[in-house]
Formats: sequence, structure tokens, C-alpha cells
Amino acid sequence: MIYFDNAATSWPKPEAVYQAVDQCLRKKGANPSRSGHHMSLMAGQIVWETRSLVAQLFNIPNPERVVFTCNATEGLNLGLKGILHPGDHVITSSLEHNSVTRPLATMEEKGIKVTKLTTSISLGLDPHQVAAAIQSNTRLIILSHASNVTGVLHPIDAIGKLAREKGVLLMVDAAQTAGSFPIDVQAMDIDLLAFTGHKGLLGPQGTGGLYIRDGLSLTPLKEGGTGGNSEPSLQPEACPERYESGTLNTPGLAGLGAGIRFILQIGLAEIREQERVLTERLLGGLESMPNISLFGPELGKDRAPLVSFNIGNKEPGEVSFILDKVFNIAARPGLHCAPDAHRTMGTFPQGTVRLSLGYFNTFEEVDVALEAISAIAANRA
Amino acid sequence: MIYFDNAATSWPKPEAVYQAVDQCLRKKGANPSRSGHHMSLMAGQIVWETRSLVAQLFNIPNPERVVFTCNATEGLNLGLKGILHPGDHVITSSLEHNSVTRPLATMEEKGIKVTKLTTSISLGLDPHQVAAAIQSNTRLIILSHASNVTGVLHPIDAIGKLAREKGVLLMVDAAQTAGSFPIDVQAMDIDLLAFTGHKGLLGPQGTGGLYIRDGLSLTPLKEGGTGGNSEPSLQPEACPERYESGTLNTPGLAGLGAGIRFILQIGLAEIREQERVLTERLLGGLESMPNISLFGPELGKDRAPLVSFNIGNKEPGEVSFILDKVFNIAARPGLHCAPDAHRTMGTFPQGTVRLSLGYFNTFEEVDVALEAISAIAANRA
Repeated sequence: MIYFDNAATSWPKPEAVYQAVDQCLRKKGANPSRSGHHMSLMAGQIVWETRSLVAQLFNIPNPERVVFTCNATEGLNLGLKGILHPGDHVITSSLEHNSVTRPLATMEEKGIKVTKLTTSISLGLDPHQVAAAIQSNTRLIILSHASNVTGVLHPIDAIGKLAREKGVLLMVDAAQTAGSFPIDVQAMDIDLLAFTGHKGLLGPQGTGGLYIRDGLSLTPLKEGGTGGNSEPSLQPEACPERYESGTLNTPGLAGLGAGIRFILQIGLAEIREQERVLTERLLGGLESMPNISLFGPELGKDRAPLVSFNIGNKEPGEVSFILDKVFNIAARPGLHCAPDAHRTMGTFPQGTVRLSLGYFNTFEEVDVALEAISAIAANRA
Repeated sequence: MIYFDNAATSWPKPEAVYQAVDQCLRKKGANPSRSGHHMSLMAGQIVWETRSLVAQLFNIPNPERVVFTCNATEGLNLGLKGILHPGDHVITSSLEHNSVTRPLATMEEKGIKVTKLTTSISLGLDPHQVAAAIQSNTRLIILSHASNVTGVLHPIDAIGKLAREKGVLLMVDAAQTAGSFPIDVQAMDIDLLAFTGHKGLLGPQGTGGLYIRDGLSLTPLKEGGTGGNSEPSLQPEACPERYESGTLNTPGLAGLGAGIRFILQIGLAEIREQERVLTERLLGGLESMPNISLFGPELGKDRAPLVSFNIGNKEPGEVSFILDKVFNIAARPGLHCAPDAHRTMGTFPQGTVRLSLGYFNTFEEVDVALEAISAIAANRA
């Protein structure tokens, strides 16, 4: 199989990830840090090491500010609901995933004011638009680092600088860029960074988290047992315990740690370059075909390693079905849980076909896909 | 090592659990059901099979009413916050875990009325007390099936019948009993059942869930992408999608499915009997020793497979430390995230030493532990 669905979940993982999960379950399977015996301490050590690796990758000064969640969606919900109160104003783009738009739509019903700025699908959100939208009650700007539909990157650097100047918080959804693009929460003025473990970070599903800048205290989504400090009837103040009630996914975090170690070992620049050339080859090939609609940044510009396209008026679901059944190529059709992005692109409600690449893909696989798409476009498949 | 910390996380797991996690990651590592290609469908099939196995184990009529969460704590938070509104009254016991008491304490600040009934540490909550506490605005009774500190089981059958008669909902926290005691949500009149995957169900950490009776609609804890039905700006109504935003922990759920298959294959009665005789041997041995304080149901009565004890005035942390360092026995000291239970028992704030057993423990291990405790009690270790 040719796997081009890495923006949903990356596959395969480095061998070390499989091994780390298995060894954690078999040899260090106790409850992390809760019980004090040596297997519990070993499990706690795994969690701490992964916390430290996340901090290293994103230049987070203190690993204790990395909170683990079960996926990016939980990190985004925690960030949004934890920081915003009725009367607050929040700014977002028209390219966001339902993991941002749906919590915001729910919170709008409770008195949060939301400004959704219409956004270029090839350039991302214009910082001048953001500046003009800031009001006296603007508390937060929430943006994906890159769109999961067009791959376009918002200019986070410029928007972060602007937000910091205006005293507005910046929250970034790194689901499509962590592990593929450099992210430095200090240099980019990011206050809250949501990430998932099972995409570019090459870890297992069931992992993810939220970086919370030192000095920010959020309302937790959940309360419960936090291991230490069991006495108080309310949730402790200390980070990360405040936000991590119940037993963590230790084997998943062991795998995530192995994924990040792999990235640090290969080097982010090397991974980025491999994904860039693969994506450019795919995009260039598609541009040269008749009857193909392409969306997002033009060839040569930064984009997350994914390409959305349509073939004439063919249903994306049909195209994906043929790619899978006839050519054994895994793609994803439809709205990709981001209907707003498709409304902005003019591809709502049918959506697009998305091919998303990863470090383990090859030129040969790209060429096979281009052949396949060419055949489908010519009704030869 | 002798592992007696199964009430925190069970270990080891059946070999099939390790295999299922590994094979899911290696062979079926795509995003479950989101993308339509065959590896995505295989991943979706894993999730569905585990949902069906949970339903089978708890006699849940429709697997779609099983919602997966990352642990029991999330299931409890979803149930409590999803069903209770300001002005509602809720009844609970004085033996509950912080995963119940802390959400309730937080909700009390928002106008939920909480009655915490003082509860017998050896008999559980008296149904007559519950009946007397029901008010016109009582919406919910929330109880653990068994205490994680004393092992006592609340009489859920009788309380369920009472609750159904009075039109009050019953939510049960099965963290300490699922996989060890029969649970039948229909026969026991349970409306909401929170469970964890990594204890008696023999699955990996990072799994758990909430059964929601047909006809109940809860406010979700989180909103986001739910795979299908991406168009609406608000969360879909259908269960389980309404409550499962973001990518699920598919490898974890593969392992949980293997754990439940193991239980169904061995038979719950066989597992219960093995855990019962091991626990009785441990309890009986401790009862015959001088200077040991024991808590919970008397010998011969039902209890979850765990024993809490103290040796004279020795600090539980010190006893556990010696058990680990000198005898290589994993125990858990302290409050076990349930300070209310220790307040009820008179062991607050120092707590107790807890030994919790599982199907894979042996008589020999129990005898070694009894020898060790005897030596510690006699200051010979």
C-alpha cells in the first residue's frame, strides 16, 4: 500500500516507536509515579522524559508547562474553555478545523464573541486584518499553524509579535506542523500550543498535549485524582497536575517520546526537506495535468506536506475510492473535518481529495500516484 | 517482582494484549474510519469490535451507547458535567475517589447541590439513607461500585431499583470492579457507567469510557472533529460521535479488546473466584497477625481484590518503601486519591498501605507478602 494519509495519522512509525510502546507495556506497565514502587517510578520516568522531549522540540523553557491530553482536540478545548470567559472576544480564521470552530460555536452561545476573519487559502491570515480586528475585550487569537486542507501556513511570527504588543494571547494548533516545521514558542510569542502525537511527531494515537505559558492558569476541563497532593477537595494549582486528572496513556507517551527522539536524531531540517521535495514533486506533477483543480499555496511556497485537489466534477469520494481499490493508494476525501476551509475555497460541501505525505514516503510512490490520478482523470481507471 | 498494585494499573497483561497493540500500530495504524481507505476501515473495525465487546461484558443493548474516553476520570467528568445543571441535587457517598469528589466540589461552586452520605466502610452505602436523602430536585446518584480503599461494594442493585422508582438517574464508577465482578447495566438499573481499561479489563492505560443509557443526551466535555457529519457548526447529536471528538486511541482500544476477549474466554466467574481466594488468603493471614489494623468488609464478605492495612503507628509510606526495596513487592501507600474514604476510616491524612491483587497473582506471592509484612511488623526488616 502507498500511504498518503499522514495528515490524518502518520504511518508507518519508526521501529523504535513500536518497540517503546511494547517495552513500556511489558516491562514498565505500572501506574506512572502514583505508587512509589520502582515500576511505578520507571513509568513516571517515561512520562517525564517525553515531557522533556516535547519541551526541547518546541523550545519550551520548563517541561512542567507541557500538559498531556489524549489528542490535539482535547488540548484545543482545554485552551479555549480554560482561558475564555463570557464577554471575552476571540479572533480566528476561516480555515480552521472543527476542533477549533466547534468549541468556539458552543462558547458563542455562552457569551464569548467570535470574529472569524476571511482568510486567503494560499497566503493564510493577513496580520493587518488581525490588527484591525483587535478590540478592547480581545483576549485570544486562535489559529492553526498550517491548514489541514490547503497546507497554507499562517504567518504566526508576525501575528505573535502583534498579539504580544497588544496584550492579546496567541494560541496555535500545531496538529499539521509539529515534527515537520520548526516551532519555537518563545521566538514565535506563542502562549498556548496544542499538538497531537500521532501525526508529524510519529507517536501513537491517544497522545497529544497543550503547552501553557508560565503565569497562565486555566480552568481545567476535568477534575480528579492527580497522584500527589490528594488532600484538597479542589484541583491543585500546579502544572501539569492541574490539567492531567486520571491515569495518563503511559505506553502511548513512551511511543511519542521515541517518535520525538527519532525527529531530533534525523533533524527537523532533514525531515522538512524530504517532505518538501516529495510534496513539490506531487504538486508539480498535478499542475501539469489537465482538468485538475488545485488549492493552496503555489509551487515553491511553504505548505504543510499535503495537497488537496479535485478532478473535474468527479466526486472526491469516488476518486479516493478508485485510488484505494484500483491503485492501493490511501487518500482522504471530503471535508477533512474543516467545513469552513472548504466554504472559503468554494469546495463545500463535496470537499476535495487530499494526499498527505510523510518522511517515509518516496519519489516512486509519488510517481505511482501521479500515474494513477492521470489515469482516473482520463477515465482510464 | 511481586506486583500487588493492580487497583492502580493491572500488570502483567495477557500476551494477546501486547500483541494486539503492536499489530494495530504496525498493520492497522491509520485513522479509524475517517478516511475510507482500507487501512482506515480496518482501524475503524478495531474500535467497533472493542465497543461491541464492552457492550457484551456489561449487557449494554446497543454498542453505540459506549463512549470511549482516555480514562475513567474523563468518563466520570463527562457524566457528571453532562447531566447536571445548576439547581440540580446529587447524592454520593463518603467513600468516593477524587475523580468524583473533585468534579462535584467544582460543580458545587456553580450551584449544584451535593449530599455526601456518611458511609459504612465495611457495608457500603445504606439504601435507606439514599431513599431519605432524595429530594424533588435530585437528578443523580453517583457511586463507585467498589471503594478503591476498602474494597467494599455499594449495594448497587438495591440503589438502582430505588433510583429507577424515584425517577433519579444512577451513575456508577466501575473502576475497581469491571472485569472482576459481574456488571449488568440493565438488571442493575444503571443509567451511566464509567469504566477504565487499564485495571480489571486488562487493557492498556489511555483507555476507558462511559456507557450512556439510550434516551439520555449529555452536554459534551469537548467539541471537535467527529469523522463523519463534518458540516454542522455544532456537535452532532448521535452517540458515540457526540462525545468522541478527535482521534481515538486505536492501539489502546485494540489492546482493551484483547483484554476483554481474555476475560470472556476465561470467564468472569473463574477470574472472580481466583481473585477472591487470593484476597481471602491475604486478609486471613493479616488478621492473624498482631499489631495490624485492617479496614473494609470482614473475611468472607464481598470485596474488590484489595486490602488496606496499617502496621501499628508505622507510616504507610515507610512500610511500602520496605516492601519495595527489601522484598521487591509493589504496594501503594497513602490516600489513594480518595481522602474522603480515609476521613471516613479515620486514617486521614497518613492513609494506609494497599495491596491489590489480580488474576495473575499466586498463592506463593501472597505468602511471601505475608512473611514480609510479618517481618516489618516485628521490626525484622
